[in-house]
Amino acid sequence: MQTISSTSLPDVQNLVDGRNIPIDRVGVRGVTVPMTVLSCNGPQPTVAEVTMCVSLPADRKGTHMSRFVALIADNPPALDCAAMRSLLDRMLEMLDADEGYIEIRCPFFVTKTSPVSHLKSLMNYRVCFKAEKKAGTTRVMQEITAPVTSLCPCSREISNYGAHNQRSHITICAEIDGHMSLEEQIRIAETSASCELWSRLKRNDEKFVTEYAYDHPKFVEDIVRDTARQLNDEPRVLAYRVDAENFESIHNHSAYARIERDKRGC
Amino acid sequence: MQTISSTSLPDVQNLVDGRNIPIDRVGVRGVTVPMTVLSCNGPQPTVAEVTMCVSLPADRKGTHMSRFVALIADNPPALDCAAMRSLLDRMLEMLDADEGYIEIRCPFFVTKTSPVSHLKSLMNYRVCFKAEKKAGTTRVMQEITAPVTSLCPCSREISNYGAHNQRSHITICAEIDGHMSLEEQIRIAETSASCELWSRLKRNDEKFVTEYAYDHPKFVEDIVRDTARQLNDEPRVLAYRVDAENFESIHNHSAYARIERDKRGC
Amino acid sequence: MQTISSTSLPDVQNLVDGRNIPIDRVGVRGVTVPMTVLSCNGPQPTVAEVTMCVSLPADRKGTHMSRFVALIADNPPALDCAAMRSLLDRMLEMLDADEGYIEIRCPFFVTKTSPVSHLKSLMNYRVCFKAEKKAGTTRVMQEITAPVTSLCPCSREISNYGAHNQRSHITICAEIDGHMSLEEQIRIAETSASCELWSRLKRNDEKFVTEYAYDHPKFVEDIVRDTARQLNDEPRVLAYRVDAENFESIHNHSAYARIERDKRGC
Amino acid sequence: MQTISSTSLPDVQNLVDGRNIPIDRVGVRGVTVPMTVLSCNGPQPTVAEVTMCVSLPADRKGTHMSRFVALIADNPPALDCAAMRSLLDRMLEMLDADEGYIEIRCPFFVTKTSPVSHLKSLMNYRVCFKAEKKAGTTRVMQEITAPVTSLCPCSREISNYGAHNQRSHITICAEIDGHMSLEEQIRIAETSASCELWSRLKRNDEKFVTEYAYDHPKFVEDIVRDTARQLNDEPRVLAYRVDAENFESIHNHSAYARIERDKRGC
Repeated sequence: MQTISSTSLPDVQNLVDGRNIPIDRVGVRGVTVPMTVLSCNGPQPTVAEVTMCVSLPADRKGTHMSRFVALIADNPPALDCAAMRSLLDRMLEMLDADEGYIEIRCPFFVTKTSPVSHLKSLMNYRVCFKAEKKAGTTRVMQEITAPVTSLCPCSREISNYGAHNQRSHITICAEIDGHMSLEEQIRIAETSASCELWSRLKRNDEKFVTEYAYDHPKFVEDIVRDTARQLNDEPRVLAYRVDAENFESIHNHSAYARIERDKRGC
Repeated sequence: MQTISSTSLPDVQNLVDGRNIPIDRVGVRGVTVPMTVLSCNGPQPTVAEVTMCVSLPADRKGTHMSRFVALIADNPPALDCAAMRSLLDRMLEMLDADEGYIEIRCPFFVTKTSPVSHLKSLMNYRVCFKAEKKAGTTRVMQEITAPVTSLCPCSREISNYGAHNQRSHITICAEIDGHMSLEEQIRIAETSASCELWSRLKRNDEKFVTEYAYDHPKFVEDIVRDTARQLNDEPRVLAYRVDAENFESIHNHSAYARIERDKRGC
Repeated sequence: MQTISSTSLPDVQNLVDGRNIPIDRVGVRGVTVPMTVLSCNGPQPTVAEVTMCVSLPADRKGTHMSRFVALIADNPPALDCAAMRSLLDRMLEMLDADEGYIEIRCPFFVTKTSPVSHLKSLMNYRVCFKAEKKAGTTRVMQEITAPVTSLCPCSREISNYGAHNQRSHITICAEIDGHMSLEEQIRIAETSASCELWSRLKRNDEKFVTEYAYDHPKFVEDIVRDTARQLNDEPRVLAYRVDAENFESIHNHSAYARIERDKRGC
Repeated sequence: MQTISSTSLPDVQNLVDGRNIPIDRVGVRGVTVPMTVLSCNGPQPTVAEVTMCVSLPADRKGTHMSRFVALIADNPPALDCAAMRSLLDRMLEMLDADEGYIEIRCPFFVTKTSPVSHLKSLMNYRVCFKAEKKAGTTRVMQEITAPVTSLCPCSREISNYGAHNQRSHITICAEIDGHMSLEEQIRIAETSASCELWSRLKRNDEKFVTEYAYDHPKFVEDIVRDTARQLNDEPRVLAYRVDAENFESIHNHSAYARIERDKRGC
């Protein structure tokens, strides 16, 4: 069986298709690969889940699935928006396609110092890079999800003591002009919450974060607005979408909010 | 504590907000409720997960979260596109909002008869209704996900015997003019695959589905195209997006394709 | 093809197996079915995910997969421990097996009245029934997961104001002598937390739950101990395992604890 | 606030508890950390999810949550059974506990060569290490999950052509005497299936795997038995549990089987 030559086998995908229906996206999903992502301190090893698709003209029967996997295995440089852009370009070239989409999701880590005891610990985030070429235009989006604390202003105001608070997720998906580090983007989210998180806190740190959150009560509406305000003021951000979800401690569902804006007016 | 009157407590959400940033969506997410969904045989009990959001003007500090839960608990009529539309209208009225979004996901069941032994069994699907009012326009989308079999034409063609096949998901999200039953929409997906699925098969049924899939080999590209062709021909469908994902039996990742079309040319 | 008789087809599963290795469990997993579960107010419709397995002697090649699905589709009476026991018996008989295991997971709803405004709303929980026959002994376990609020005693004690709190899950898996309603079992969990949850709360309710949680601070250790104490005192509980997980609002990981006990001393 | 000394704050966890109920496990769950795991080619970077718990005597109010995070952040040597054992020992010492449990889950990658074209690609697996000290005895388990192809012998036998096949997961959790590489353990699973998987296949490879699977039909029962046979024959394996789950291509549920054995006769 080892003697079969690949070229002598029929290539069904290369046949002409008669249905006359172009395909917007075709490719692979759920490809899990080790990768590095660019942090402020250089390339950081991580494990990513990758989606890669291209458009397919109406007359072509199929794409070449194994080329996607080859491309991603070729060990691209540490992930950032520039790497995504060149990965997209190479994919379109290798697959001979006009349009395409790449999405890469992975965990990301930042060493943080606790607020009082100055204890160092690694905090984990989720990042996602998306690159799309459509109708001749390429857009690259850099997305981070930062877990934070939110503390309810209403609960604080109406109660004689205490205030319900909970873990929340702030997700910022941004189109950036030039370069913004993942750490910078994470800081925008963290500084828009009632308090940021650390992996390790001593008792004096815990006192600090408890009181800090109580001193900075925010509705989910406040969190997206305060994040949006920072993104509005940041000239490198061309367009953004911010989502906040509070995993309410007094309910079994979430409070949720979103603001979306393209500064270029489109 | 039982004597506190709600009206005497400060209403923080009703305060005026000075940041001058409108919010696209604010509301609740992950609300789990028992519900009925409209099948061809009348209302079918199910358990749904609900997202409900409204827009919030720049000058309003917060929305009224508990009203969303009240609305969904009011036991709407069996879910279909018409029920979604009126639920959206009531939400916008109750929350005093111009724009809003509702998404309701739930399992859905259809009694099927096996192809040879005519055994009856319940097949399970996922459905999702989405209703959005934006810029004065309301759109309601009806989405189904049907699990099916796909069998690879290339594998069949190049192999002396056998062909790799696997479970696949076909998702059709459609904007419909008038009414299309969930069962009709599911049939469009199931008849576009290499073979449909049943929960119970006797040996003669298993022989049938094995040979039927082998006789109808389809790439993920064929599946979305054959689905799209049917949706193109169906006058009640105004716009659609079809996604197919093959959980490849020879790889640890998926083959994936999408076709999106708005027949109204927007 | 419709004329093939099932009996004329070879029955590969019934062949004799020569490897001489018995199988502990073989069956189906991830079967999704509509079902009813027994609440205090009678049968409640829900959607369940089912696992059903039997043991297989060393000399038998395979089991009969389609019989499991037939059995579960036969619409058992509303789920409770007694129904699980008889479902297990029927499965062992239909599959001609000595040992077997059934697990059924589903959402469950209880109408609750908010603490101050007496607003009614539906609260959702997860339940799971497990029945196993092994070495001649049958055990049936009834499991509930109740989402609650936990408020940190340390954070409260060391802070000048406020205290971090969060959503937590308490899971009680119990072997019961006679009958205990799901609602009773849920109450044991809810009354062991810093505060219970409701789906709808007015402002005076929110004041109540905020202050109540602050007045009842509990570590994850306290939550499992207070739950265990109630289960120790309840004569109908023969054996139990209680797990508590706090989705910490000041960290991006959980605090977790477990107590396991068999009162029969085994 | 930076001047607060941690030692002057009350230490609530160190108080004496009066309920007289010992806790089986208390600790942290869902801690996400970068880590290395030991492959045949040395340490491999990955991202792990960690659970760490200790027992707590009846008279101690609470454990020290932040010590767990400190321990795991201390960058242990590349994960293998020996590293798990010493991590467990250090945890018990740091937490002053008699019993404890550690579970570390992470993706793992192996470079594979496709069967005909000899193309190299990275295949991804899941590994999990579990270490537990209970009643004076320490056990360390090494678990791998390998995705494979299964092809149904019944479908093949009764059909004139074709045979349904699908992706399956084989999970081997083993207690090992001495050292067995993750790669060796993965090979036991892969060689027990109808065919193994690769991330990249050329057409001649695809012909090979299609025909190979057809030539090696296996029920889920065969897969666990063939895996068990290899584990029985392997002297380094002291005890094992093997699970196989076939994500059936002709159904929307799984076929599932398990064999569990302790060769030491306990």
